[in-house]
Amino acid sequence: MWVDLNADAGESFGAWRMGQDEALFPLLTSVNLACGFHAGDPRTMLRAVRLAKSHGVRVGAHPGFPDLVGFGRRDLDASPEEVYADVLYQIGALAAFLRLEGMPLHHVKPHGALYLRMARDPEIARAVAQAVKDYDPELPLVLLGGTAMEEAARAVGARYVREAFPDRAYLSNGQLAPRRMEGALVHDPKRAAERAVQMVVEGKVKALDGGWVEVKAETLCIHGDNPESVAIARAVREALLAAGVEVRPF
Amino acid sequence: MWVDLNADAGESFGAWRMGQDEALFPLLTSVNLACGFHAGDPRTMLRAVRLAKSHGVRVGAHPGFPDLVGFGRRDLDASPEEVYADVLYQIGALAAFLRLEGMPLHHVKPHGALYLRMARDPEIARAVAQAVKDYDPELPLVLLGGTAMEEAARAVGARYVREAFPDRAYLSNGQLAPRRMEGALVHDPKRAAERAVQMVVEGKVKALDGGWVEVKAETLCIHGDNPESVAIARAVREALLAAGVEVRPF
Amino acid sequence: MWVDLNADAGESFGAWRMGQDEALFPLLTSVNLACGFHAGDPRTMLRAVRLAKSHGVRVGAHPGFPDLVGFGRRDLDASPEEVYADVLYQIGALAAFLRLEGMPLHHVKPHGALYLRMARDPEIARAVAQAVKDYDPELPLVLLGGTAMEEAARAVGARYVREAFPDRAYLSNGQLAPRRMEGALVHDPKRAAERAVQMVVEGKVKALDGGWVEVKAETLCIHGDNPESVAIARAVREALLAAGVEVRPF
Amino acid sequence: MWVDLNADAGESFGAWRMGQDEALFPLLTSVNLACGFHAGDPRTMLRAVRLAKSHGVRVGAHPGFPDLVGFGRRDLDASPEEVYADVLYQIGALAAFLRLEGMPLHHVKPHGALYLRMARDPEIARAVAQAVKDYDPELPLVLLGGTAMEEAARAVGARYVREAFPDRAYLSNGQLAPRRMEGALVHDPKRAAERAVQMVVEGKVKALDGGWVEVKAETLCIHGDNPESVAIARAVREALLAAGVEVRPF
Repeated sequence: MWVDLNADAGESFGAWRMGQDEALFPLLTSVNLACGFHAGDPRTMLRAVRLAKSHGVRVGAHPGFPDLVGFGRRDLDASPEEVYADVLYQIGALAAFLRLEGMPLHHVKPHGALYLRMARDPEIARAVAQAVKDYDPELPLVLLGGTAMEEAARAVGARYVREAFPDRAYLSNGQLAPRRMEGALVHDPKRAAERAVQMVVEGKVKALDGGWVEVKAETLCIHGDNPESVAIARAVREALLAAGVEVRPF
Repeated sequence: MWVDLNADAGESFGAWRMGQDEALFPLLTSVNLACGFHAGDPRTMLRAVRLAKSHGVRVGAHPGFPDLVGFGRRDLDASPEEVYADVLYQIGALAAFLRLEGMPLHHVKPHGALYLRMARDPEIARAVAQAVKDYDPELPLVLLGGTAMEEAARAVGARYVREAFPDRAYLSNGQLAPRRMEGALVHDPKRAAERAVQMVVEGKVKALDGGWVEVKAETLCIHGDNPESVAIARAVREALLAAGVEVRPF
Repeated sequence: MWVDLNADAGESFGAWRMGQDEALFPLLTSVNLACGFHAGDPRTMLRAVRLAKSHGVRVGAHPGFPDLVGFGRRDLDASPEEVYADVLYQIGALAAFLRLEGMPLHHVKPHGALYLRMARDPEIARAVAQAVKDYDPELPLVLLGGTAMEEAARAVGARYVREAFPDRAYLSNGQLAPRRMEGALVHDPKRAAERAVQMVVEGKVKALDGGWVEVKAETLCIHGDNPESVAIARAVREALLAAGVEVRPF
Repeated sequence: MWVDLNADAGESFGAWRMGQDEALFPLLTSVNLACGFHAGDPRTMLRAVRLAKSHGVRVGAHPGFPDLVGFGRRDLDASPEEVYADVLYQIGALAAFLRLEGMPLHHVKPHGALYLRMARDPEIARAVAQAVKDYDPELPLVLLGGTAMEEAARAVGARYVREAFPDRAYLSNGQLAPRRMEGALVHDPKRAAERAVQMVVEGKVKALDGGWVEVKAETLCIHGDNPESVAIARAVREALLAAGVEVRPF
């Protein structure tokens, strides 16, 4: 039994800081780096790549909608052609910094509103999956299993891995509970850790509205933008190891 | 005897059109494509790469300062670290589209104010040359010979080729005449063509303020942003061929 | 009987040109100037204001979503609070140039995807109407009658005027025919002119899918972004005058 | 004897936070709010205006170069016409939010690289001063006395007030010591407070390189972007009051 631990990172922009990359990276096995469209300017990207290298952490691209002021969290009605080109552009930009450091591009995980859009819009999901596959047929797309994302990846023949969220509540239909719902965010490191173990070892998690949800995931995502991130990542990691789960990159 | 013919291209942005790529590309042997910082959004870049491919034209990156509203023509006091990262980012973004089309990245030619800054600022010139070399030691930087650009390329050990401008007047000190100077721009295709031949065959060109300037160039740049561009490119190309000069990529 | 003739204008950006403001302005009674979010940089705005002044044309603000690369034509899931603040920001920016020229701000007409969003999303429609009213209770919002826009303007107590589109086909349900539909765009100046007269004099227009649509409008919009714009504006204006309709600002 | 206490504020952008506006505003008499070009999106501006109102603090515009990623701290070779229009645009945008809250626009203080450029470039200094005067002949420009800024304000007939910096060291020639110079930044609240009193009461301050510099200032600027800002503002305010100096807006 094994699982990868990922987090979004490199989300500072110019003079503005965000996240706790230095404290988080030692606890992770892979990171998704912002590529300049929703966050992450070129110097921030280069710094984050070097930080990942120094900790032996795998690096994936984290492309988003072109919306700095909205941090890529607002749905944008971009065409599949626009999304296809935007994703390739962002992948390429990050790949330049990885090439510099002699590191491979490990995966692609879309950000925020683009990720959520893919989960329900087959055309956009296929545009992203096609971009990833056209860039490199071996490059895996990180996605939410059981959604239009997974279908799209299969339909275009792109490689993919599925992720789960120990610090987010699920609904019994398998969807993530919306952030504004009471109890949607898991702030207690101990509880997040128990959920992580359950997800990996038992392949299920308790739903916010009762019952159990089946979970199949090769990677667990720790949200980096809340104060408990580091404590949660540490608790999750230690609980997984204690449960005999190997924590390693996919 | 041979020479390359290049032009800046892919300089549309979103709904705004610029340049005459369709008419110019058949007359050129290489193009420098804007990479999103001063012009050129992802879809424009992808289209321009495909257009270049269909005409067998080599493609280089044309990175600029991050200044859309100023079209990269305004000097910006960016640090060498910022310029280094910005250039790598833009090279990588273009490389993704080339990879898609199975085309190699042929060269890098900085744009506008960044190009002019390099010609007089050794630190910035070295930052760009280092970025190009670190990305790929075989990748040539297109530059203005006899300036800080050439020195910097030599100092960091980057490959480079020199360019000359048949549609721009020179001063006797070897510099380009500033655009606002009377006679700085050559609008007559016939005269541009004569100058091109003289540059390549005799290695010199008449200066605006008298005397001759020595010119060593492996590539001639045709400005794409004036109405006579296509006529000038055609006249230059035909005059070179008539003079026994091979027109081919460097 | 009277009607206003308006067009979107000032939609160049930096070095990129768009529209035919110089030729169109003499034929219009009001213009809607882009405010920097989807098009229109500060110098372009100042120039357009001065051009409008020289032709005695009234000037309104044309705020859009913050999406230069998409020209404000892509729907964006901005919150009502974001839209409220974005609209005020853009109104204020334009108002500075008008103040300079001693001209009043005549109206506000939202652009592209923001306009279409308002026609179907009451919350966003109210956010815009509230912004306009809070800025100046006397300032009219230009909108599409019979939609959520009109309801919202009424609900918040904002002044408004209704517009109609002689160069766009209508459906029998009163909506504009989508651009991609065969016949959605009226390119023939003579036909556009006939429709304009019918709209103003008879208060109706023939629907693309049969039958008649009732039209109540104080202003007619001429699209500025197609090659026939100037010919259409001239034909519409002359036909209105010939039919005894006064062409004057609302 | 009296003096105004100002600080730059409203410098967050979208999801990114900067500064300590809530803690600083109660200690100040005026604030300079970023206007969207180097920092400060519309919602951030509206929030900052309301915060200032709740504390009875006067609000001025803080226009900068259009350079988000560089936070307006990098010199940009914009033309006087561009700077003139950019400053008017930013003033107008802020004025819309003030109008909403029934507050007057109190002053204009240029930001970062634009401020420094004005101190040495008469053409740019005049462009800004002219923009401020053309917007409102009664509106004061906050500037560094004894530089090209003051000359320009006088030359165009713009109103102005001079500021001094208790938390920055001066050189004996009256200039601010460059930030990278040892001792350029005053971090000790007690020392900053002593300097503030000396500036206002005695009209002078000790230079970093020996001797005294004459200081004439109607407002003292507290830098908001360092951890000691709040402690410095409090110490300066209390020391001024204790010395019998009235702390009030200019």
